[in-house]
Parts: sequence; structure tokens; C-alpha cells
Amino acid sequence: MKALVYGGPGKKALEDRPKPQIRDAGDAVVRVVKTTICGTDLHILKGDVATCAPGRILGHEGVGVVDSVGAGMTTFHPGDRVLISCISSCGKCEFCRRGMYSHCTTGGWILGNEIDGTQAEYVRIPHADTSLYPIPEGADEEALVMLSDILPTGFECGVLNGKVAPGSTVAIVGSGPIGLATLLTAQFYSPAEIIMIDLDDNRLEIARRFGATQTVNSADGKAAETVMALTGGRGVDTAIEAVGVPATFELCQAIIGAGGVIANIGVHGAKADLHLETLWSRNIAITTRLVDTVSTPMLLKTVQSKKIDPSLLITHRFALDQVLDAYDTFGRAAATHALKVLIEVS
Amino acid sequence: MKALVYGGPGKKALEDRPKPQIRDAGDAVVRVVKTTICGTDLHILKGDVATCAPGRILGHEGVGVVDSVGAGMTTFHPGDRVLISCISSCGKCEFCRRGMYSHCTTGGWILGNEIDGTQAEYVRIPHADTSLYPIPEGADEEALVMLSDILPTGFECGVLNGKVAPGSTVAIVGSGPIGLATLLTAQFYSPAEIIMIDLDDNRLEIARRFGATQTVNSADGKAAETVMALTGGRGVDTAIEAVGVPATFELCQAIIGAGGVIANIGVHGAKADLHLETLWSRNIAITTRLVDTVSTPMLLKTVQSKKIDPSLLITHRFALDQVLDAYDTFGRAAATHALKVLIEVS
Amino acid sequence: MKALVYGGPGKKALEDRPKPQIRDAGDAVVRVVKTTICGTDLHILKGDVATCAPGRILGHEGVGVVDSVGAGMTTFHPGDRVLISCISSCGKCEFCRRGMYSHCTTGGWILGNEIDGTQAEYVRIPHADTSLYPIPEGADEEALVMLSDILPTGFECGVLNGKVAPGSTVAIVGSGPIGLATLLTAQFYSPAEIIMIDLDDNRLEIARRFGATQTVNSADGKAAETVMALTGGRGVDTAIEAVGVPATFELCQAIIGAGGVIANIGVHGAKADLHLETLWSRNIAITTRLVDTVSTPMLLKTVQSKKIDPSLLITHRFALDQVLDAYDTFGRAAATHALKVLIEVS
Amino acid sequence: MKALVYGGPGKKALEDRPKPQIRDAGDAVVRVVKTTICGTDLHILKGDVATCAPGRILGHEGVGVVDSVGAGMTTFHPGDRVLISCISSCGKCEFCRRGMYSHCTTGGWILGNEIDGTQAEYVRIPHADTSLYPIPEGADEEALVMLSDILPTGFECGVLNGKVAPGSTVAIVGSGPIGLATLLTAQFYSPAEIIMIDLDDNRLEIARRFGATQTVNSADGKAAETVMALTGGRGVDTAIEAVGVPATFELCQAIIGAGGVIANIGVHGAKADLHLETLWSRNIAITTRLVDTVSTPMLLKTVQSKKIDPSLLITHRFALDQVLDAYDTFGRAAATHALKVLIEVS
Repeated sequence: MKALVYGGPGKKALEDRPKPQIRDAGDAVVRVVKTTICGTDLHILKGDVATCAPGRILGHEGVGVVDSVGAGMTTFHPGDRVLISCISSCGKCEFCRRGMYSHCTTGGWILGNEIDGTQAEYVRIPHADTSLYPIPEGADEEALVMLSDILPTGFECGVLNGKVAPGSTVAIVGSGPIGLATLLTAQFYSPAEIIMIDLDDNRLEIARRFGATQTVNSADGKAAETVMALTGGRGVDTAIEAVGVPATFELCQAIIGAGGVIANIGVHGAKADLHLETLWSRNIAITTRLVDTVSTPMLLKTVQSKKIDPSLLITHRFALDQVLDAYDTFGRAAATHALKVLIEVS
Repeated sequence: MKALVYGGPGKKALEDRPKPQIRDAGDAVVRVVKTTICGTDLHILKGDVATCAPGRILGHEGVGVVDSVGAGMTTFHPGDRVLISCISSCGKCEFCRRGMYSHCTTGGWILGNEIDGTQAEYVRIPHADTSLYPIPEGADEEALVMLSDILPTGFECGVLNGKVAPGSTVAIVGSGPIGLATLLTAQFYSPAEIIMIDLDDNRLEIARRFGATQTVNSADGKAAETVMALTGGRGVDTAIEAVGVPATFELCQAIIGAGGVIANIGVHGAKADLHLETLWSRNIAITTRLVDTVSTPMLLKTVQSKKIDPSLLITHRFALDQVLDAYDTFGRAAATHALKVLIEVS
Repeated sequence: MKALVYGGPGKKALEDRPKPQIRDAGDAVVRVVKTTICGTDLHILKGDVATCAPGRILGHEGVGVVDSVGAGMTTFHPGDRVLISCISSCGKCEFCRRGMYSHCTTGGWILGNEIDGTQAEYVRIPHADTSLYPIPEGADEEALVMLSDILPTGFECGVLNGKVAPGSTVAIVGSGPIGLATLLTAQFYSPAEIIMIDLDDNRLEIARRFGATQTVNSADGKAAETVMALTGGRGVDTAIEAVGVPATFELCQAIIGAGGVIANIGVHGAKADLHLETLWSRNIAITTRLVDTVSTPMLLKTVQSKKIDPSLLITHRFALDQVLDAYDTFGRAAATHALKVLIEVS
Repeated sequence: MKALVYGGPGKKALEDRPKPQIRDAGDAVVRVVKTTICGTDLHILKGDVATCAPGRILGHEGVGVVDSVGAGMTTFHPGDRVLISCISSCGKCEFCRRGMYSHCTTGGWILGNEIDGTQAEYVRIPHADTSLYPIPEGADEEALVMLSDILPTGFECGVLNGKVAPGSTVAIVGSGPIGLATLLTAQFYSPAEIIMIDLDDNRLEIARRFGATQTVNSADGKAAETVMALTGGRGVDTAIEAVGVPATFELCQAIIGAGGVIANIGVHGAKADLHLETLWSRNIAITTRLVDTVSTPMLLKTVQSKKIDPSLLITHRFALDQVLDAYDTFGRAAATHALKVLIEVS
């Protein structure tokens, strides 16, 4: 089968690989129908993700059809159309039982990282009964690819952790795909204001179309003052970090109101300064989270009932044969205006 | 009347001052019966608290008897025995209505800071109906002095914010008075393990008597390894910072388990490093809080029903005339083994 | 001044009354600008509310302008435009401190019940600093009359207590004004389905326009079967009782899914059967609540940010001189299709 | 093997039965070491439990040793010492993923009910990876038998649902084994008062030894007045029903304070009156729950750390050969003063 293979820092290729086989009783092999590329795949290609060895098939998102199942599986059967979660969850360990699937002791984010992933014609899914989700009859499968990772990430790490609430004021720092997914799901809770902050006017324009009530271009170095002015000097109730660098995390500290929450989504490669000398008495919370995808069933319901349209995030489409072009388009997002690129596999 | 007056960095004196008068309709003047000294008073004397001007009567803790009341007061009357909260709360502003009394727009921590305090024969209490608490018949008034600040601080900032729960594992970094107050109130929730960390063996010995299940002297620089070993490599569910310097806050980051909470109590004068490069995916929360004293009625009930004995924290007693000795004893705690020093005023 | 006065069961009249005066330090006298009639006023007129004595001026909703203030007031001043809460809250008692303003020991629902109310040119408001809310510049004052009682009641007793959540399935039994207010505010949380149940097709048609995804006319006695069919036999996540008779409360029991919540809003005059023989093992919760109006500041923000338009509930308008016509129109709602009738006082 | 078999209403016998075999990939067969009898077993023997057919081996509690495992099992292995949960949980269905194991679509309470149970030398456990718990080295296995059902039931249905909190006032109606298990676990949260109500002075005396602060014998029909007097007319914060008849549930309604919670544990065979005519405005919640045993890992930690001693509940011990005597002793509890009877199987 064809697969996009990581070849070490800076290297990737579309290769021929053997079709994966059932290994454990809880495995399923899924024929991939649609997949996509994540910002994390770009991190891997830079050599930033030590757990991902050369030779790995990338990808941790997608929808497909169950091809074969292990002896212990009870929920899914060959022929079932399924959504693949980016997080593998055994359903048995202490963390899974607490709803922290991201820390599953034999799972977590392993797909396209520690084991072969979804940018291929077939993929082996461990703990398949608890890591796949049934696709409802008549669903828009393209839209559902956004439920593998980006929507639950924005929702769980940003919106839920950030305690977005009716009437509240929210700032989202970063208007890339993950910031925009956060913006879409934040509206489930009817906040009064959603202020979107980015350096790219095109992305801020998209944010406005997606429901931002205010946008701030932070290129002038005055984003904090601007947000404080917009909030009458009180700061925001929720500040969501959707970039992953110290400067944006520190901006969140500068704009958070007393009693507020800073919810981190960004994947950070370096420490940041925490200004405890001012924050110690501000009654705030800071949260971090690797997505658990515990909200996937709920998100499926909101898509089916049209409370949200995740296909808004899809800007480009490619066949698996064109996956290198897809990477190129996604990698040069400032120029191509790409948000999520859809790869049609079969 | 006699009062302990701050005279600028390094200076304090017992002076004669006029008895305070009712100024606003919501004021009460309280005759102070017992008061105490807080670590924050030592910070003021070092010149670290910019809001506290020379000439200020210090002190924000105590019990007393209502002497006179303003025209708008309805709850308390002259002769009522009352507990004085360290936090003045108007009960009307948005923050008070949300239970964040610490951020009351016309109150908060002002006593012995922005207005004259309790280390005196009389004190004026603004917003008195919502900043005083009735002392139940037959209560141990010495014990109740611990409810003005130290017990609600340990409980709200440490225990409640830290989500201490039955069966959980808690580490408290700092075994001074505030760490010990946290230790006492953490036991309301029956955690399985409470690990107390400090540099002073005497304080760790007290911690054991107060209910710590393990103690760790961090002088060898290996506290993090020790705690990880004690927890089977998993880290703690709750790490409570009760010191206020970067090193102890960073220790909390090193020992927090996935899904855990770091609850900061310490008053910090400098920023700390936040290791987002490891914490971003650990699903943790960090909280800060200036005590709201919203738990005071509940704490009164636990004292009355003997679920806790706050008088354990009192090691020394002085008359108001000896208040300078009291400061000396409290300031040299390592040598004197002082925890809280009680000052009997009248 | 002119005022609508309750004269005992079945009797009411527009009478001349002396203008109210400040009595306590916390009082304000408010010149009423707009008011409305509540279903509870009809209950009083039937003689069902024992606490309301003949001679009482009715009404507990409205907006106005502060005319005079007591000596203890600090927040509002003559000339301020204010929203009047149906609940008087002292801000000081244990219940107010816990956010249960409805059970304020010297307040609660007293306006137009135990003391004179708002269907008059002026009204005395006790505990005014904590029972009035400032009207933002440029606000639609008609819409805000809906925030005195009906919107917080639907929201707090129905939506908040019912734990309405993104993707969830909600049934609201009763499509009168309070059921419709619940329907409007339930949408703050983006449930997937809102099933509205009533006997009146006109009200169900309005419910559809207001956002119901399904409507069920229960006249055929088969509402429970219909709802179970609509939910694939699982029942609803939230069932909200917005009528106040045993039959509708028992319908909620018949349609609640395992793990769900029955949130009662209705004012009940009789006991109901609770089917513990089936419910004991269904992991459900049943809640009751007299509105606290603790959500009023939040609701003001959602109105200002146009997340909700409460003026949708207003169907008729009258001058105070026509208040008897207003009662007639509101009392014959099935025929007049009245929801809320607005009374313009000054 | 020997097994206690239900023979239809009023009939039971110790019979010889074939040793159970693995049937599904997720099954384990467990050699039973210790088991016990539950009040529910007596209900079955009365013919009250329609799902339990004659010929069924009874029992849903116990500890044992894994004898054999199915092909899909990954957590447990032959020879492992295990605690058997009364609830079978697949870990995969929507209810299990929400922590509502009691409503598992292929499990729930089936042991000793829909499938053969633990009062036998061996038992087949379906969904074994997620329905067994490892027994820590050195644990008191007798005590752990109390964690199969009675302790999680008292804790989850009574204490957790009832929101028992530090300083709060709790009433437990029913001082039988389940009421006493609730009393033991309620103390995890340090309530100020626990009032125990029963008809049997012996059981009330035990309650006092187990930590009740007050006891009320309700034989005089004045329990409600007594509790109201004990609480200064305010009623209790939490009322826990641990009997299962209308009278005790209605007593809970009579003593619940405004803002309180009535947590039902009792297995009810008939409806009860719900006094909505008074409760509608009291801001209360009523909860029901079939135990989920989601708290079992936490309870294990509290037993291991000696925060609770469940062996206090064990009053009598029998061998499996004497199981009919054990039933007799347990069934005549008023005379024998039995709480839980331990059956030593192997």
C-alpha cells in the first residue's frame, strides 16, 4: 500500500509499504478513506518529536472503513464506517477510567508517532473498540475528519479547560487552524466577546467570519494594552494560548482578569516566565492538556445537529498521490492561506 | 490608645494613637481582645509592601467586641463578640457577589495595609456587616484568632484550590505556620498521603505530629527524587506551594503527577520558570489566590464540632505591651520555634 | 400615585396611593418606568398566595429611575436607571453569601407579595444596593423588564439546574411564557435537541420560531411515548417542568433518561407521585428552585451582546391607566395569544 | 463445586454445580476466597427481583484468585488476587465511558442476578479487566469484601450524591449495614454533625460507636420534629435515605433544609409522595443511583491508608458449608445483631 513515511529530520516520501495486520486481540485494521495533516506532523518533520523514529508512517487523523478486527473486539465489525481518534485509549487503565485518555498507559498519542499512522491506505488501530467512533448514517465524512484531533483539542484544552461561559469575555491568542477550531467550539457557550489575536490579517479576517467579535493584530507589540482597553481595564475571563511560544503565553498573563483562566493549547518547546510576583494574588488558574478526545461523542452530536460546521476549516483537497503537495501547501500556510488540507485516500 | 505602628522599612514602635471613629455608615469600631502577627507583617517591615505607608497601625487578624456601629449596619450591635476577617468585603460589588471577596472593589486586604489594623486597642472595620463573623457562645477565642487569616488561607488557597480528595496524595512545600495550617485543613478531605517538605527538621517533626504521613527535608537538593520515589514515580495529585520563592514553586512542577493541581499559597516577589516544555501535555492546573475568607463560616463550624483544633498553631503568648517582644520571637522562628504568637490586648 | 391594588380573592383595582418613602438605611425609592404582569400575580388574585394580604400593590418586575436613597446606600444614586430584581437580597445573610438570594432571611420574594410592588408609579426597594442592577447606556429597557423575573427563572431553575450542555437532548414541558424563556436561555449551551411539549398548537408554533427542534402536542395523552420514540428509547438528558401540576411533573419522570436531570420550575399547589420503584436505580436528579436572580449580571451581558433577544416575549403593550385591560389580556392568553404584556408607567 | 442456589420465592439450597468456564474473550473465572450476603439477596429470596430466575447461584460480592482468563484479557492473569465488583462494566459503551457503570449496556448488576454469582467456589466474571480490582500486597481481604458493594454504595449513592462537606449537617435515615457504611464514608468529608435515625436502639448504639454525633429513635413518630429541633429549625444539609420505603423517603423531605440534597440509596418497591407544594421553592435536589463502583480504586486507597476500617461491619463468620446458617443469621438481624456476615469459601 502507499504511505507517507518520515525519513528523519527534513525528510519524507510516499512509499510502498505492506498492509498492516492485526497484532493484538483489541486491534482493528482500518481502510483509510480521508485523512489530513496536523501542525504536529510538521513538528515531527523538523525533528522536534523524539518519540517518532525514521521509517514511521505519519498521520493521526482520519475516517475509514473497518477492514478486519482482533479476537477481543466487540463493538466494531468489518465494513463499519469509523472516525479514528488521534488518541488510543485502552478503556481499562486508571487514566482511561478517569477520562484522561491522553495518558493511557498503553496508548495516548501513539498513532503516527510511536506506531504507524493514517497517511496511508490502511492503518492498524490498537484498543480499537475504545479508539474508534461510529459514523452516523448520512454524516459529512469530510467534516468528521476535523473531529479526529483539531476540534476536540480546541474544545477540551481551550474551551472546557478555559471555562468559557455565557456572557463571558474570551481572548484566543493565535488564529491558526487550532485557534479557529477553538473559536468555533467556544461559541457552544455563548460568550459575550471573543477577541482573536494574531499577526496575520488574513487569519484575523477569517476569525471575524467564524464569529470573533473583535480582532487584534499583535504585530505592533501593543496587544496587551489593546485588550485591556477593550475590556475596560478588567482583562478577560478566559485567555487561550493557541501558538506554543513563550511570548504568546506571557501575553495571556498580561490580559487575564482577576479570577480568570489561562488555558494552554500550544505545544511548547521551551519554558516561559510565570509572573507570580503579580499573579499570586489574582486568583487565576492556568491549565495544560494533551487532548483526551473524551468529548468526541458530544462533538459528533453537535455536528449532526448542525450546531457547528467543522468543514469550514477545510481549504484544500488532495489525493493521497499528491500528499507531498498537500504538505507543501499546508507548510506554507501564510502564502497559501491553508487551514486544513483534506487528503482523499480511497 | 496603644498601637503598633509601622515607621517605614525596618521601623516599628508601640505608640499612643487616638481611638478610631465611625466614618461610613457601614463601619464598626471593634475593641480588640486578641490579635496576632502574620508573615505578611514581616514583609511590610522589610519594605516589600508598597501599599502600606509609614504611620500605619499593623495587623489584620483578631477577635474583639463591637464598640460602636455606623448608621447602615444591621447585623452586629455594640457588645457583640466578633471574629475579624483579614479581608474587608462590601458584599455588593461584582467580585463580592461572585465570592471573590479578596478583590472587593472597595475592600480586599486593606486592614493593617491601606488602613489602620488590629494590633491596637481599637480598630475601625469598614463593610463591617460582611467582614465580621459572630463568635458562638463558649467558643475558644484564642483558637478563633487563627480563623482571621491563616486557616482560611491554607484551606482556600491550598486545600480547596488544590482539590484535595479522599485517597489522594498531597505534597505541601513549606512547613511554616501557613504550611501547617494547610496540613490541618487538608485532613478535612481524608487524603491517603500528605508529604511535608521543609528545610527545618523541627518543623517537619511538628508536621508529623499534625498529621503528615511522610516528611522530606529538602536540604540535600533531592526532594523531587524523594517524592517521586515515595509515589512510585507517579508524582502527587496535589502540590501546594507554601513558601513564596521560585525554587519551591519549581519543586512543585517537578513532583506534580499527570492530571494534578499545583496550588500556590506563597507571596512571591519574583517571577518563576514555568516548564511548559514538559507540562504542556501533562493535563495539570496551577492556581493562585489571595484568600477570600469565604470559608470562614464553614471553618467556624469545624472548630465548634472539634474537627480541627487551630490552637495547635499557637506557641507563644504576649500582652500588647510586649508586642515588640512578640515580633522578635515571631521573626526569629527558626531559633524560637514560634508558629503563631498570640497577643492579648484586653 | 396610581397603583394596581389586590383587594382579596378575585378583586383588584387601580387606586390612588401615597408615594412610598425611604424607611431603612438600605432602601431606595424607584420611579417605575416599565413593568409587567407575572403568572404569579394571577395566582395571588385567585387567593392562592397566603403571604399576600389584601391592600397590597402587586408587581415584582420592572425598570425605573432611582428617586431617593437611604443613608446606607453606596452603589446607586438618584437619577440612576435601574433594573428591579423580583428577589430582594440583603447581601449579608448566610443564604445571600451562598448565592441563594431567594432565601434571604430579610428578603427573598417579598415585592408585590409581603410589601408593595412595582405596578405603581413608585416603589420602595429594600436592600436596594444588592437588589437593583444598573442599566447599561443604550440598552433596550423593554427587553430588560424580562430580566426582572422570567428570564432568570427559566435560566436558573430550568437551564442551569437542568445542566443543559452542548449536544444534549432537552425536553421542556410547558410552552407558556416561562417555558419559552427557558427555551431561549437553553440555547446558550447549544443542546442538540430541544423538544417542546404543550397542549396549545399556537404556543408550540411560537416555540418552533424560538428555536425548538421538535414540538409535541400532549393532548392525545401519548407525549411520553412520542418523546421516547424521538430519543430512540433513551429518554432525554434534561426534562424541565414549566407548568406546576402533578401530571406534567409525572410526564418528566416518564421521559427522563438514565443519568438525567428533572429541573422543576413550576409553582406547585399539590404533591405529586414520585415513582421511586423505577427511578431508584436510574441515577437521576430532581431539582427545585425559587429563582435567586444570581444570574442577572450575566444575562445583562448576553442581552447587550445580542446572544438573546428577550423582547421576543413581549406581545402586548399598555399604559398604567389600562392595567386592568392588561390583566384581562394576560389572563386570557389562550384566546389573546399573549406572552408577556408590557405596562408603560412613565 | 458447591454453590448457593436460588430455587424460586422462599427457596434456596447448597447444591453441587459444574465449575464455570470462560465463554467470551473478556471473561475470567475466579476462585472465590471470601464472599458475603447482601440485603438484595434477601429481596431475591422474597421473589421481588424479577430478573433473577430460579436456578441462579446468588451473590455479587467477594474476593478471590483468578483461575483462568479469556483471550482478550490484558490486565489480570491466573494467580492474581482480585476484588470482585458487584457491577460488571464493559469499559466501552457510552455509559461506561461516562462513569455510569451501573448502566453498562452489556453489564451493570448482573452477577447473582442475571448470571451466576459469587456464593460458590468459582464464578465467571464478564468484562473482567474492568470489573475486577487488584488486591494490594498485605491487604486485609476480609475488609475488602466490603468494597464489592456496600461501601461504594453508601459512598457514591449517599455521600457523593449527597454532597457531604466539611462543617455540614447530615442525617442518615436507616442504621442498617448500608446506613452504617454511609456513616463510615461520610466522615471522609468531616461534616460537623451526623444524625442517625432508626427504630432499633442497638443499631443506633453501633452508629454512635461508628461516629454519629446524634442518634434519633423514630419509633415515637416524632423524628422530623426532633431533627428540626437539633438543627435550630433549619433542617439538614444532606438527608440520606437508606431504607427504601415511602415513610423514610418522606421523612427526608420533612427534614431537608433550604438548598439541601436528599440522596436516595434505598431500593424502593413503591412510589412515594413528593411534596412539591412545599419543596418547589426550597432549592433542593433529590438524587437516585444504582452504585457504579467508580469509586472502588479510591476506596482501596483509603482502606490501605487506614482512613477507614470496613471490617467494623463484619459481625459473623461462616464457612461455605454453613451458608444456610449465614442466611439465617443475616436474615434475623434484629435478633442476631448481624451487620455483615462473612463467608469463607476457600
